[in-house]
Amino acid sequence: MSLLESVLDKICPADAGVAVDARRKLDSLTKPQGSLGMLEECAVRYVAARGDLDARIENPAILTFAGDHGVAEEGVSAFPQSVTLQMIANFANGGAGINVLARHIGASLVVIDMGVAGDSALPSAPGCTLLCRSIAPGTKNFARGPAMSRQQAVASIEAGIEVAQKAVADGATLLGTGDMGIANTTSSAALYSVFLDILPEAVVGRGTGIDDSSLSRKIEVVKMGLEVNARLLGGDALDKFSAVGGFEIGGICGLVLGAASEGVPVVIDGYISTAAAVVARAILQNCGSSVDLFGDYCFFSHLSAESGHSAVMGELGAKPLLDLGLRLGEGTGAALAFNIIDASLKIMREMATFSSAGVSEKS
Amino acid sequence: MSLLESVLDKICPADAGVAVDARRKLDSLTKPQGSLGMLEECAVRYVAARGDLDARIENPAILTFAGDHGVAEEGVSAFPQSVTLQMIANFANGGAGINVLARHIGASLVVIDMGVAGDSALPSAPGCTLLCRSIAPGTKNFARGPAMSRQQAVASIEAGIEVAQKAVADGATLLGTGDMGIANTTSSAALYSVFLDILPEAVVGRGTGIDDSSLSRKIEVVKMGLEVNARLLGGDALDKFSAVGGFEIGGICGLVLGAASEGVPVVIDGYISTAAAVVARAILQNCGSSVDLFGDYCFFSHLSAESGHSAVMGELGAKPLLDLGLRLGEGTGAALAFNIIDASLKIMREMATFSSAGVSEKS
Repeated sequence: MSLLESVLDKICPADAGVAVDARRKLDSLTKPQGSLGMLEECAVRYVAARGDLDARIENPAILTFAGDHGVAEEGVSAFPQSVTLQMIANFANGGAGINVLARHIGASLVVIDMGVAGDSALPSAPGCTLLCRSIAPGTKNFARGPAMSRQQAVASIEAGIEVAQKAVADGATLLGTGDMGIANTTSSAALYSVFLDILPEAVVGRGTGIDDSSLSRKIEVVKMGLEVNARLLGGDALDKFSAVGGFEIGGICGLVLGAASEGVPVVIDGYISTAAAVVARAILQNCGSSVDLFGDYCFFSHLSAESGHSAVMGELGAKPLLDLGLRLGEGTGAALAFNIIDASLKIMREMATFSSAGVSEKS
Repeated sequence: MSLLESVLDKICPADAGVAVDARRKLDSLTKPQGSLGMLEECAVRYVAARGDLDARIENPAILTFAGDHGVAEEGVSAFPQSVTLQMIANFANGGAGINVLARHIGASLVVIDMGVAGDSALPSAPGCTLLCRSIAPGTKNFARGPAMSRQQAVASIEAGIEVAQKAVADGATLLGTGDMGIANTTSSAALYSVFLDILPEAVVGRGTGIDDSSLSRKIEVVKMGLEVNARLLGGDALDKFSAVGGFEIGGICGLVLGAASEGVPVVIDGYISTAAAVVARAILQNCGSSVDLFGDYCFFSHLSAESGHSAVMGELGAKPLLDLGLRLGEGTGAALAFNIIDASLKIMREMATFSSAGVSEKS
């Protein structure tokens, strides 16, 4: 059995009994029932995923996967491809948005080179661990053929699984996803089209900030990718992913599956990470599992300002925790959501009950 | 000149030059311009209010004002009036939702008895200071006549101003509002009807959780209040407030004005606190000021689940930072928003620039 198969096999439903106990406990606290809204839901879902009513967040970590995309050569991004590698140096030096926000929430940050064009071998800085799990120096241009082989798809996902397993072995009980990769909104848009059957026009957005003509080109490029890879897109979830996916997206997909298999919930960042989660869910469903991966193990952290993410959230029936107009990626939205989940657990743990505080209940 | 008059006189616009500098600085950081959305806006607005590009949040404090309402006798709440006093004991003992969240964000918590029915003299617990600024043991029933005299209205607002001034003198550079008072959603709904000209049906909600028949009764009670106080409601902002307001709402109103006069921004909690802010704005406008109180000094922390709050936010053209389905009050939504504002300032302060990090700019 491959690593991927064994992980898929190991993913169990969250603990429904713990969820019932958590709801009962929340209802006993000195507040009108349900008056802390999504905060209460966060607490219930976290402890149910952990299978422990008293579960806390320990050693939280943000895992930011980076990769380059052959499709960048089609002119779909406002920034040159070299930025992916330059940003890895920025992560290592602690100067990127996710460095700031990981420090803000007291989480460790791991950046994984899943396949960046160029040499990312850099020393890790304090507060940022850099791992090299490069599959290849960038995917191939999916507008002209498959982005990667099926073997590379599996390798990228298994690398993400291993990163998740290592983080859990190091004591993390909550993981957040992040991405970096010039042109990866193009790959993600194609994945949404393929896996959620949404038209390219409805999911392709401006990414880092392209103009109208580049936006039209980007839609066209996604359509070319769907057409040229039609045969592969008729295959299973792994075939579909290999046709238009990305190495960092595969890594995030593996992270989601690996974390769920360990009973560790995952905070999904924005547009790119959601695409990876959609792939993870499809792979799990493909193998016949009935586990509700999103309901049981995923927190959608925020609604991205990348147009199309709201259509995706609607399709998934998901209500993200935040809506701050973010479209940076890197795990920045996930980091902000950690704080809310942490607050929710403290509410459940620290508030007085009606009886302990001597407060009258509802008339 | 009264304290209120001198404070109104002292409120100046935020520093537009600092706002320009802040936007320029944010645009130089290693992220696509504007890609941190509302986080960027938070940073700009905070430093502009403080008049200092390098301003940080120091000694943050949540100020939770409590008061009772005569209108509670009309059966408009799901909880008995005694809960207001019982909750003050719960605050003092550290067991309420706001105690947990104030600790979570590292803010001090001050609870002010503005006029609770019964004796609130309790020792303050670690992490919660209890102040008694009681105007009277609850307002009068506004469905039968004015809730309070004009003198009481001014006294409640000036008490809030003094609390704000004390907090600022103690070093606070960001204040959050909170409320506790059985039946205060009824008073707030009436204030929205009066000050924003919204129909009672569109702003009256279920508060702590009333059933359909109590909801109809609550709407009727608000209408009675508007009718019986018609003469007073034709007066100035203070007359209007005295007709259907509340002592804790007056305290929050004073807090907003007092903070703005010191150049300290205020995080507005939910349904009740927004009503107090609306009164504060009307009082400021009444005296001929052209300062944009909300744009310059107020952060609307969250969209309350209390129905009507979204209509109010729409009317104000405000986009709250959070939408988590909260309807507890106490300052809980404000506390969660502190964390986002803090994150926004760290982003501006700690991120690398394109030039310092050697990252290529947009093609």
